Amino acid sequence: MFKKILIANRGEIALRVIRTCREMGIKTVAVYSTADADSLHVRFADEAVCIGPAPSSESYLNIPNIISAAEITNADAIHPGYGFLSENAKFSKICAENGIKFIGASPEHIDKMGDKATAKATMKAAGVPCVPGSDGIIADFDECIKLAEEVGYPVMLKATAGGGGKGMRAVWKKEDLQKAWDSARQEAGAAFGNDGMYMEKLIEEPRHIEIQIVGDQTGAACHLSERDCSIQRRHQKLTEETPSPFMTPELREKMGAAAVKAAEYIKYEGAGTVEFLVDKHRNFYFMEMNTRIQVEHPITEQVIDYDLIREQIKVAAGIPILGRNYEPQLYSMECRINAEDPYNNFRPSPGKITSFHAPGGHGVRLDTHCYAGYVIPPHYDSMIAKLITTARTREEAIDKMKRALDEFVIEGIKTTIPFHRQLMEDKNFLAGNYTTKFMEDFVLEER
Amino acid sequence: MFKKILIANRGEIALRVIRTCREMGIKTVAVYSTADADSLHVRFADEAVCIGPAPSSESYLNIPNIISAAEITNADAIHPGYGFLSENAKFSKICAENGIKFIGASPEHIDKMGDKATAKATMKAAGVPCVPGSDGIIADFDECIKLAEEVGYPVMLKATAGGGGKGMRAVWKKEDLQKAWDSARQEAGAAFGNDGMYMEKLIEEPRHIEIQIVGDQTGAACHLSERDCSIQRRHQKLTEETPSPFMTPELREKMGAAAVKAAEYIKYEGAGTVEFLVDKHRNFYFMEMNTRIQVEHPITEQVIDYDLIREQIKVAAGIPILGRNYEPQLYSMECRINAEDPYNNFRPSPGKITSFHAPGGHGVRLDTHCYAGYVIPPHYDSMIAKLITTARTREEAIDKMKRALDEFVIEGIKTTIPFHRQLMEDKNFLAGNYTTKFMEDFVLEER
Repeated sequence: MFKKILIANRGEIALRVIRTCREMGIKTVAVYSTADADSLHVRFADEAVCIGPAPSSESYLNIPNIISAAEITNADAIHPGYGFLSENAKFSKICAENGIKFIGASPEHIDKMGDKATAKATMKAAGVPCVPGSDGIIADFDECIKLAEEVGYPVMLKATAGGGGKGMRAVWKKEDLQKAWDSARQEAGAAFGNDGMYMEKLIEEPRHIEIQIVGDQTGAACHLSERDCSIQRRHQKLTEETPSPFMTPELREKMGAAAVKAAEYIKYEGAGTVEFLVDKHRNFYFMEMNTRIQVEHPITEQVIDYDLIREQIKVAAGIPILGRNYEPQLYSMECRINAEDPYNNFRPSPGKITSFHAPGGHGVRLDTHCYAGYVIPPHYDSMIAKLITTARTREEAIDKMKRALDEFVIEGIKTTIPFHRQLMEDKNFLAGNYTTKFMEDFVLEER
Repeated sequence: MFKKILIANRGEIALRVIRTCREMGIKTVAVYSTADADSLHVRFADEAVCIGPAPSSESYLNIPNIISAAEITNADAIHPGYGFLSENAKFSKICAENGIKFIGASPEHIDKMGDKATAKATMKAAGVPCVPGSDGIIADFDECIKLAEEVGYPVMLKATAGGGGKGMRAVWKKEDLQKAWDSARQEAGAAFGNDGMYMEKLIEEPRHIEIQIVGDQTGAACHLSERDCSIQRRHQKLTEETPSPFMTPELREKMGAAAVKAAEYIKYEGAGTVEFLVDKHRNFYFMEMNTRIQVEHPITEQVIDYDLIREQIKVAAGIPILGRNYEPQLYSMECRINAEDPYNNFRPSPGKITSFHAPGGHGVRLDTHCYAGYVIPPHYDSMIAKLITTARTREEAIDKMKRALDEFVIEGIKTTIPFHRQLMEDKNFLAGNYTTKFMEDFVLEER
């Protein structure tokens, strides 16, 4: 087992990793930017090394400084957390070259899964369902008609140079294809100077459901069930839950098997997540694979009672996984508390926390690096706490979340607590009836 | 279901009950003494009524004031927590007479289990093993010899007027009985002016292991496994855990069956605890029954995932229990954090908390009414927080507890955190090798 782990991250995830290391009797090294000198991850680590000024490029993304910190402190492993260098193949490679175990994916796996096209091709080869569509730019309208028949309506036409919805058309039947093709190409040409189009099957009422997997050095993998992360705003997850209210035992078995197949096909080592889009007919399609621990990992921990960071460290140390898939017995939910003003378009709200009271009691878990007097620096991600509740039913987990949100006191800055309070009262959310489009229609009431 | 519950208590347990009521959508009424005006249970309840000055006799034990508070606020039930009026038959009766549901035992059950002799007689009749001994005062030495043979050596001779170990003798064989009888009687006569003696079997290496039970209004009961509460100082529990490291599946089945028999024999309604002494041969003997929720109930909640306060409320509202006994799959441990100076004979240390930081993360639960700026009044019990950890193995639960204790910051007062830190490193504790005598030999190191 490792003697000393350097945590190349900040905030709650750095603290999260330090906690498990302490419990395992492993010494820890925190690294920090000058803006984070007063952070709890610095206080709770056995050693701490300043690696540069506030901008991430000069500290948390500064590979030479982090490797130096590991060498100076004699750390034999690095845990990258999420974000920053966690999916940086170069960093993973440099760690290996310096004889430091990177607690994450190999450079090959990061490369393979980091590039969307390569990832999709690999998953296709593994037999994992991917969103059907064209292999690249569509040559002409004749090919377009043929492709649409193959893929099956509805389809999406998308500009290869596209973005922001421009040059994009949903087509529900053959008769509408010609018009859509012409207008999308014209729009794309005008907007991007490139009218190249590709096609994908349109996913009706898409849900973002991901499968947590763990693979070990023997090439074996197991899955730890799903997380529903459909509640998103501009592709940022806001609230996650497990089990997904849309899940059925049959679908879980199929999606779990696909995720395990994906992991075993590439001989994936460590914790990872296979993200799928699930349509209203419960067809599922590979979206991407995250080769790191995720923000929302605690809800999985809550329902399986395993510590996923511990599993990551054990796998990295060469200990085989237990090799059992998991069927959830409990319900868990996470609200990401951000230092943002939900009444002002979620604008970041850094600054000093003047008062802080953490909710507690039965079924409540809080992961945070904040405390009364802590100053949230403006340089980083605005997430300041993860509030997690767990219960025997979804309804009770929501009731606990409401109660915990009501108890949570953070003064001096704006937070997304009022948003989550209203979300927990939304009829469609309560009914488990939501897709990735949910936030487009959600209106926050002034209270 | 109840519409509004008054909580006739203070501190963490009042907050604990309020939390579950909120989650169930039940309105709450806090009552408080003038010393507790700034307490969190007052802040988090929907309504709060001051019921008198600081001394408990004038507020938390003041039945007329509490009943008035319930009537003024239209509360349809009262939860008494633990301590105070929770096992007061008169209070339970007055609640019933006023049409207020007492969420606890009936006056009859409190009476039956509150008196030690009646409780023992009832349990004997139910077929629950009790500590063998004389039925009252031993007439003479001849009866003493006969009794000792029946009970079986070793036996304890105890002065009927005794206390503080005076007039008490352990006797391991027949040859020593005469001398012990004479000297104990002489000592008792001199100390208490009463040389009446009774006899009990001496419990070798006694462990305090209790079984949590829940009974419903149909007369059915189930048990939720055990808690080991042997770590005590002057009969005050300090740390509790489940499962007991001394437990075996066979013993659990026998003790669980005995506890369920005890509950069903008296048609017990609500949550209760049957406390047993277990000797080194794994014989177990009924000690007493607590007809209330207990301080240490969270460790049971952690391993069974049920909310026991919710179960209490449901049973009181006439909802039948699930009727399944429970075999623990997880390990949970509780440290009672008291405002006491462990380096100064555990002397109470009331006063202002100047700084407060709660531990959190995976497997950590904190039940507390304290916060930075809170002033602990000198009038009440010194327990200020319950720190609970849960994991898949006992070792991991202990590792989590060590880590959480290290993270826990309470400044401005003395606390028992340093005691618990050392307890978590004690060889015998780590080996699960402890009895109710443990604290007699435990030496706290200055650090």
